[in-house]
Amino acid sequence: MEGEKKRAVVLVSGGVDSTTVLAIAKSQGYEMYSLSFSYGQRHAVELAAAEGVSKYFGAREHLVMNIALDKIGGSALTSPIDVPKCRPREHSADGIPITYVPARNTIFLSFALAWAEVLGARDIFIGVNALDYSGYPDCRPEFIEAFEKMANLATKAGVQGTTKITIQAPLQHMTKAEIITAGVSLGVDFGMTHSCYDPLPGGKPCGQCDSCILRAKGFYEAGIKDPAL
Amino acid sequence: MEGEKKRAVVLVSGGVDSTTVLAIAKSQGYEMYSLSFSYGQRHAVELAAAEGVSKYFGAREHLVMNIALDKIGGSALTSPIDVPKCRPREHSADGIPITYVPARNTIFLSFALAWAEVLGARDIFIGVNALDYSGYPDCRPEFIEAFEKMANLATKAGVQGTTKITIQAPLQHMTKAEIITAGVSLGVDFGMTHSCYDPLPGGKPCGQCDSCILRAKGFYEAGIKDPAL
Repeated sequence: MEGEKKRAVVLVSGGVDSTTVLAIAKSQGYEMYSLSFSYGQRHAVELAAAEGVSKYFGAREHLVMNIALDKIGGSALTSPIDVPKCRPREHSADGIPITYVPARNTIFLSFALAWAEVLGARDIFIGVNALDYSGYPDCRPEFIEAFEKMANLATKAGVQGTTKITIQAPLQHMTKAEIITAGVSLGVDFGMTHSCYDPLPGGKPCGQCDSCILRAKGFYEAGIKDPAL
Repeated sequence: MEGEKKRAVVLVSGGVDSTTVLAIAKSQGYEMYSLSFSYGQRHAVELAAAEGVSKYFGAREHLVMNIALDKIGGSALTSPIDVPKCRPREHSADGIPITYVPARNTIFLSFALAWAEVLGARDIFIGVNALDYSGYPDCRPEFIEAFEKMANLATKAGVQGTTKITIQAPLQHMTKAEIITAGVSLGVDFGMTHSCYDPLPGGKPCGQCDSCILRAKGFYEAGIKDPAL
């Protein structure tokens, strides 16, 4: 692909983190292929945000995969369990919020890996971060590292030893406030993003779930008004 | 789950290998949850075989996930590329057959991981084998090992350190003939299985694709007549 732009697959949910990641990938000169999932989430309104920010940042293509994770269940995001309100990180006995979706990032990254291999993309971007995160095991740096190792054995790259796949997690060590500040400096309009796990009728954020609270805290600490509110 | 049978998720395509794996898991006393995929494969007839063998071996549940890998493409199994006939392992310039589906086993195992976590199953069975295999990178022992490591960091197991997930690949070092012999001794009726990548109208095997040829070679070397023919 000499002379062509380097390609990247970017996982985009339409929230604060993945939208900032799109802006970062663009600023690094990648031709972006954004990937989202309709997975039975109760906040499927986020897919409209994912489409909007993908277009805004000029992604070459935006692919939405339909995978009915609600058939597997195990999460407040995909099952008829109430999303906890006003008590972040305190609701589950094992310390992991019940909004955790089993193996979700593994599944998302696996599809990204397939698409990257078909596109000849060497980089996969994901907006996980390990500071202001929700306590999900698949947001930790050691998970990302292990996935990258596995990915290079799973694909042609591992046999031919030519194109190494890299999992890019540029937000890994940033606070939510730092992410928001970085996003604004790269031209993100956070008014286009959606974070709420359990939106009100019409799609407005509830303001009380883990995700809304993390977002509000981030904007507050960044000293920026949330344009989505 | 004291007093209950130990649970396993078994990846079942309805072919020779995965059906033998079902029989092995049953012989080891597992309560089996079989998992298949409708992924845009041209040989979707295999799903009927997967359903049949899952019932035959008493799987507690058989879940079929719909994931349109044909939207990602890159394989003769999911794209309008001809499946090569009568020239196994010689068709692709890079030594990997064009029937390779990018990251397929990674994706399949990721869903199995999600389901295992929800079920409290510690074991995931997969019928990969590294001897009479088709040259796919994601059938190699080093891939399975890397996936297992990643899986234990991806899930609650990795945070709590209690239930370690094991990827069981009991066929890994067996020839196709050994697999068939083992299957027969465990009560597999291979007449219920389907292997062909590119079935004739009505679902009969073509007899000429990689998968048909590997199957025929296996039965020949095992000295057993293929009951599906």
